[in-house]
Amino acid sequence: MTAPTSKCDVLIVGAGPAGMMLATWMARMGITTRIVDKRGSKIYAGQADGLQLRSLEIFDSFGFADRAVKEANHLLEFCMWNPGEDGLIRRSDRVPDVPVGLSRFTEIVLHQGRIERFFLDHIKKHSKGCLNVERGVLPESLHIADTCADHSADNYPITVQLRHLSEEEAKPAQSKASGVSDGLFRSNLAEDDTDDLIGRSREKEGQTEVVQAKYMVGCDGAHSWTRRQLGFQLEGEPTDYIWGVLDIIPLTNFPDIRMRCAVHSATSGSLMVIPRENKLVRLYIQLTEIKPDASGRADRSQITPDTIIRAAQKILAPYTLAYEYCDWWTAYQIGQRVGTDFSYQERVFLAGDAVHTHSPKAGQGMNVSMQDSYNLGWKIGMVVKGLAKPEILKTYQSERRRIAKDLIAFDHKFSRLFSGRPAKDVMDAEGVSMEEFKAAFLKGNLFASGLSVDYGTSMLVAKPGDATEEGDGTDVSSSHSEKAVGKQDLATNVRLGMRFPSYKVLNQSDARPWEFQPKLKSDGRFRIIVFAGDVVEEKQQARLQAFCAKLTASAFLAKHLHKDIHVLTVHSSKRVEVELLRDFPDVLHPYDEKTGWDYDSVYVDDESYHEGFADAYKGYGVSRESGCVVVARPDQYVGHIDSLDEEGYAGVETYFRGVFVG
Amino acid sequence: MTAPTSKCDVLIVGAGPAGMMLATWMARMGITTRIVDKRGSKIYAGQADGLQLRSLEIFDSFGFADRAVKEANHLLEFCMWNPGEDGLIRRSDRVPDVPVGLSRFTEIVLHQGRIERFFLDHIKKHSKGCLNVERGVLPESLHIADTCADHSADNYPITVQLRHLSEEEAKPAQSKASGVSDGLFRSNLAEDDTDDLIGRSREKEGQTEVVQAKYMVGCDGAHSWTRRQLGFQLEGEPTDYIWGVLDIIPLTNFPDIRMRCAVHSATSGSLMVIPRENKLVRLYIQLTEIKPDASGRADRSQITPDTIIRAAQKILAPYTLAYEYCDWWTAYQIGQRVGTDFSYQERVFLAGDAVHTHSPKAGQGMNVSMQDSYNLGWKIGMVVKGLAKPEILKTYQSERRRIAKDLIAFDHKFSRLFSGRPAKDVMDAEGVSMEEFKAAFLKGNLFASGLSVDYGTSMLVAKPGDATEEGDGTDVSSSHSEKAVGKQDLATNVRLGMRFPSYKVLNQSDARPWEFQPKLKSDGRFRIIVFAGDVVEEKQQARLQAFCAKLTASAFLAKHLHKDIHVLTVHSSKRVEVELLRDFPDVLHPYDEKTGWDYDSVYVDDESYHEGFADAYKGYGVSRESGCVVVARPDQYVGHIDSLDEEGYAGVETYFRGVFVG
Repeated sequence: MTAPTSKCDVLIVGAGPAGMMLATWMARMGITTRIVDKRGSKIYAGQADGLQLRSLEIFDSFGFADRAVKEANHLLEFCMWNPGEDGLIRRSDRVPDVPVGLSRFTEIVLHQGRIERFFLDHIKKHSKGCLNVERGVLPESLHIADTCADHSADNYPITVQLRHLSEEEAKPAQSKASGVSDGLFRSNLAEDDTDDLIGRSREKEGQTEVVQAKYMVGCDGAHSWTRRQLGFQLEGEPTDYIWGVLDIIPLTNFPDIRMRCAVHSATSGSLMVIPRENKLVRLYIQLTEIKPDASGRADRSQITPDTIIRAAQKILAPYTLAYEYCDWWTAYQIGQRVGTDFSYQERVFLAGDAVHTHSPKAGQGMNVSMQDSYNLGWKIGMVVKGLAKPEILKTYQSERRRIAKDLIAFDHKFSRLFSGRPAKDVMDAEGVSMEEFKAAFLKGNLFASGLSVDYGTSMLVAKPGDATEEGDGTDVSSSHSEKAVGKQDLATNVRLGMRFPSYKVLNQSDARPWEFQPKLKSDGRFRIIVFAGDVVEEKQQARLQAFCAKLTASAFLAKHLHKDIHVLTVHSSKRVEVELLRDFPDVLHPYDEKTGWDYDSVYVDDESYHEGFADAYKGYGVSRESGCVVVARPDQYVGHIDSLDEEGYAGVETYFRGVFVG
Repeated sequence: MTAPTSKCDVLIVGAGPAGMMLATWMARMGITTRIVDKRGSKIYAGQADGLQLRSLEIFDSFGFADRAVKEANHLLEFCMWNPGEDGLIRRSDRVPDVPVGLSRFTEIVLHQGRIERFFLDHIKKHSKGCLNVERGVLPESLHIADTCADHSADNYPITVQLRHLSEEEAKPAQSKASGVSDGLFRSNLAEDDTDDLIGRSREKEGQTEVVQAKYMVGCDGAHSWTRRQLGFQLEGEPTDYIWGVLDIIPLTNFPDIRMRCAVHSATSGSLMVIPRENKLVRLYIQLTEIKPDASGRADRSQITPDTIIRAAQKILAPYTLAYEYCDWWTAYQIGQRVGTDFSYQERVFLAGDAVHTHSPKAGQGMNVSMQDSYNLGWKIGMVVKGLAKPEILKTYQSERRRIAKDLIAFDHKFSRLFSGRPAKDVMDAEGVSMEEFKAAFLKGNLFASGLSVDYGTSMLVAKPGDATEEGDGTDVSSSHSEKAVGKQDLATNVRLGMRFPSYKVLNQSDARPWEFQPKLKSDGRFRIIVFAGDVVEEKQQARLQAFCAKLTASAFLAKHLHKDIHVLTVHSSKRVEVELLRDFPDVLHPYDEKTGWDYDSVYVDDESYHEGFADAYKGYGVSRESGCVVVARPDQYVGHIDSLDEEGYAGVETYFRGVFVG
């Protein structure tokens, strides 16, 4: 009996946050996609839950950040508790949980099941119901043809055999020790069960199919089956630190139970408090009494909610801690590993836990994983559509493997400081200095926010420098004869390689204030942001007209307006002194015969009636007189900056010639 | 054949905004309710669309304002266009659409169908799916027993026979003149079709049932069947002004098409622009060429989208106006009427268009209608539950008929100024002065926001004065032996009889900033708001303890805590200098054996990390040292203000003895 065969552009293996994010891009860009997951049901509790600033900005670019913000618990303050001279814990510091002034968001926590729900709703809406997660489906063979370099539209070099499990087979086994659902089956203390699942399922017949794909992305977790097929490794070592996790409604007199806290006890280990939605609190609890065996791995059978809460009680003493309701629990052993390769010939990619594993306490796992596939998705989409050169796919490994290495280094340092015993005094060389811990937290905070990401030079980021040095070593320099180099000094706070920041601006046509960054929607389009300057001035108006005339007349770019390249404008004149139809060339607010003028593309940096004056030009570091032009990638990262004139137009076109097919 | 008979606490006739709001209260308070509507389908386009500030605050108290704010178009600026010396229209003024600093919201527009959707979702969630709008169902007889005064729980004095229509019967007839759906069937240019519907349906059998109810509310529109059964009148007269309404995507070069505009042409009549969501614009267009006939009513057959757009083109000339897409249209003749009675023996009530009709251009219709039943719902709910004295039901007519009269006076003046020809010069006595129009708009703006509502003294509002004079003439003074009189000077900006204003405060337990007003949720509970003052000061701490001791020990009030009376606290000490469990009596943050301490009831007026310092005590006009106590009704209107001490407690108890059964 031959298995049925079908084709798709992109096959995604794994429907956790990394896979969901990739599917979201595919839905937004209209790419034929399948997404499969070996589990038979989605996650309803536990798992990762911290959403960092950049993740919320990304959600906002899709349009569903508000759902997360509304339902989540918000973390505002981080409190550090350490032993005093009497050996009892006391609060030594309070600091803002995220640096002030970085973003319109704060860190929030919400369980992964809700976040997956937001993705699913968005995918359903934008794929018109065509793209659905296929659960209880797993790959069992992968074959890659040697025609990978041929990117013509009818080449499907990837062949995957998929196996459909029955509902019973796809259900994860739960620990017998308690009635509460646990996450041990996904913990690094457990063996992977993929081969088991395949083995059990193979005993039955007629449940396989063959899929031929142009691209494949393994978002299949730390035990990644895809990674194993490719023969790629995770490099790094586990540590001896073993931690338990409890999601409970606490009964306690500990005063900071609704704050994010790091508690270092004198001799009983450390604990982190993450207050969550619906009165829940997540506790990360160091299990100092459980040690790894000779194989280096902790004995799972010793770990129960009961042993974990007892460890927590010791750490928090003299404060009391108990619970009536436990929502979820798990345990893990800290280790930091990063993948050797993030892609096989730019045809099969790995993202998320498949290429980096680390401790969960810094709230990075889900965030960095989603940001991996947020980086990758639009690149695949543009190549599948025949718009962008396939070589842009190389920037995925260059950009994201570099981030993964930084993450692992950060986590290594933070875990050591957090799991270590506090120093008794300055002579206690084996103990951890609480000053050092605080300094590491504050420095790590910016990294953890996701806003310090700074991609190196490449065909997608027109900054000077060496492409191999600024990334992970992959060569991602432009193959185009001429290399664009952005003029950073024209927009000093819009950094080449970093995400486009946000300030409030007003819609020119209706005076409504908007955060500007979410206007750079994640819809698969590049953006030219015209900082038009003071358009009331004759000379500046002439520069604007000259730039727009070149843009409209361009044989190379005009055909991509506004389908693949969207144009947004922010000017710095007084709102009431200019008019949309009189003072701005048509290309900045195109006319449609059915729906009239576009009133949503021209903005002004001016005083609002109810929300003050954001002074966005100052924030962006752009001259209010002469303005400039910024090119943002579809993921809001800044690709190019140039002057608002004919010469600047030439730079913009050079940038796009390095990216677009022609 | 006998019709089946059933009982319910409350029967609502009409599922427009007024009926939906009432049903929402009933769902929130767990009252057995039925809501019927003669139409077979809900509204998908057109109808009222402006949401004023107070309506958004009310939505926020239920928890769904964010949905409206996200989907709606926001109105920020109001532009006035008048003839210049050359007779051509030009912009003479720009003013903020709503007064600055009044509310966290601005005026928004969104079509009624979406607003009804938010209500339906909320009703479904809170009634656990038990309360559904029954469409195509209309009342055909009403009988009221003479036992109305007996409010015992088993008395159902109202008997209504309901008729269930077939789908075909319940569908409104549409004008034949265009392919676009119109609202003429609900316009005041059309006859009511209720009797027709009943007549046609009576020809069939077995489609009636009998409902016995404790209370009934007619939210059944300007032609209210319920009002006719009660024999009550609408008083007032129609005018000669006839207006058309078009919802279109405009193709135009008029510069302010995305602003709210009032355009007075020299001789062709007036026009109002209301920009809406999804590129739509609503135009209210004066039809100067269509006159009422001898009966005083305009001929419907002369009115089509074509005649309306031609009138608009004349008014807007020399600017061009056309459209490819029309979403909806209608026409109406301005008239102002107000009902003689809002209730029959506090058993059958009328709300919304059933008791006040006026022109739609000030965006008041849906808002005042919803606010009618927002005023009524919790009162019925508390009486049905046996908590409150039935006499509180009298305050509905006293409070809302007064508002309706103010509305009609406002609309009368505004309509005359808007429909009149602009004065050519100061000698043109018949023309309307544009200065006068602007002054009326600015004054009307505060009224239109809904925030100037100031209910008179009654058993629910402990302010001095005469209850009949301050309302519509109904006697609503307290029957309790002792009358509470609030101490207005302890909270100078928390006005007795007005809605409790909002400032940002921080949760004491997690430092998160919140608007405080939405913490006064519409869940059917009264609220005691403890402005605790500077609790670090020993003397003030003692006053807080004394007040809380009386509250906890009270035989009258303690049994209602926190089920019927919720306690919220805002203090003015530094957040980091106090602790919830140490500095605040338990009654302010009660303990539950399953879920621990309540961390959501104590707030602080202090600096936030990311959102500044609101200085709420200053905003509320309360002393930072000594604080005070405010009682808010379940609808957020201020009922009583007293001092934070034993004497103040006595005042609070006196207030509640006037309201609660005992």
